[in-house]
Formats: sequence, C-alpha cells, structure tokens
Amino acid sequence: MTLRHIALFKWAEGVTPDQVAEVGRLLAPLPDAITQLRAYAFGPDAGISEGAYDFAVVADVDDEEGFIAYRDHPEHQAALAVIRPLLADRAAVQFRVDAGA
Amino acid sequence: MTLRHIALFKWAEGVTPDQVAEVGRLLAPLPDAITQLRAYAFGPDAGISEGAYDFAVVADVDDEEGFIAYRDHPEHQAALAVIRPLLADRAAVQFRVDAGA
Repeated sequence: MTLRHIALFKWAEGVTPDQVAEVGRLLAPLPDAITQLRAYAFGPDAGISEGAYDFAVVADVDDEEGFIAYRDHPEHQAALAVIRPLLADRAAVQFRVDAGA
Repeated sequence: MTLRHIALFKWAEGVTPDQVAEVGRLLAPLPDAITQLRAYAFGPDAGISEGAYDFAVVADVDDEEGFIAYRDHPEHQAALAVIRPLLADRAAVQFRVDAGA
C-alpha cells in the first residue's frame, strides 16, 4: 500500500512564469533530499480543461510517517515558504493507493 | 511522457458514507472499460491533514486524446452524474509527468 499526497495550487493574480519556474526548481531536488519519497511528480496544468487549477504536486510515500517526514523536511518547508505567498487557493488530499496503481 | 489527470472532491454537507462507497463502486470498473487508462487510483482522504479535501481521483493517460476519451466515456459520464450532486467543491489539473514518476 502507498500513501499518495496530492496538492493542487491556484496561483494568485500577477504570479509570473519565472516565479512558477522557481517553484519547479525548488521541488526538483526533493526526491534526492527526502528518502521517504517513493515517487514524485509535479508540474503546471496543461491547459486542456476550463477552470482547472494551475499546478499539481504528487508525492508517494509508504505511510503517514513518510508523509510527515516529507511535509516537515527543511527543504520542503523552504519550498513552501516561496509557494505560499503565490497562492490564491490550494486543495490537498492524502489517500491510500494500491501499489502500482 | 504521461498525462496525469487529478480531480479532488470536497463533499457537500450531509453526504453519507454509503454515497461515497457508491462513488467508489462506479469508478472501480473504469480501468477495464476505458482502454486509454494507463493507471487509475482513487479513494477517500486518510484524515491526516486538517482542511484536506475528501476524495481523490488520479487517472494517467498517454495524451490529451486519451484524456478526452476518458472524460467523455459513457461509464465515466455516468459516474460524474452521481458525483456532481454530492460536491461542495472540486479542484482538477491535468499535467505532464515523466513516465514512472
């Protein structure tokens, strides 16, 4: 069983492509820095559906302990410190996934 | 490259566990019915984080064409017809993911 954490971001008005690129640069090193991460994917919405949020982060860990290690890791917290002021809205879920799903 | 569709649901007040279970029963057959699905995972929030949404659906397809086939498939539309009246809020993104991420 895997625990999948998902966070979807809606950027505030005026957030620039450079600021979004910076978010990507801050998230990219996290899989190497946080050993509890089993899979990690993030990126901007592809512009297919109207009303979509703007960005997604998907982090797979083994369990709640792994999620808390990811959530509280200094490098993740440093990324959040940059992300939070850019947000108009955020939706998140952690749910259990059959391995390989 | 994979296109990952994510939908997070916040249930309306009064939605019952039975109604949520029915959503699961409607989503479960979709991977067999919709050949464009490469991976499919869904489930209720695990109750770890305050303010989380209530349910997540993650559908991996090859491309935009695969997503549209999933989105418009009659069995998916039948599930949405049950889900929509249960929603207080919904957040969704489709984003490109490196295969295996």
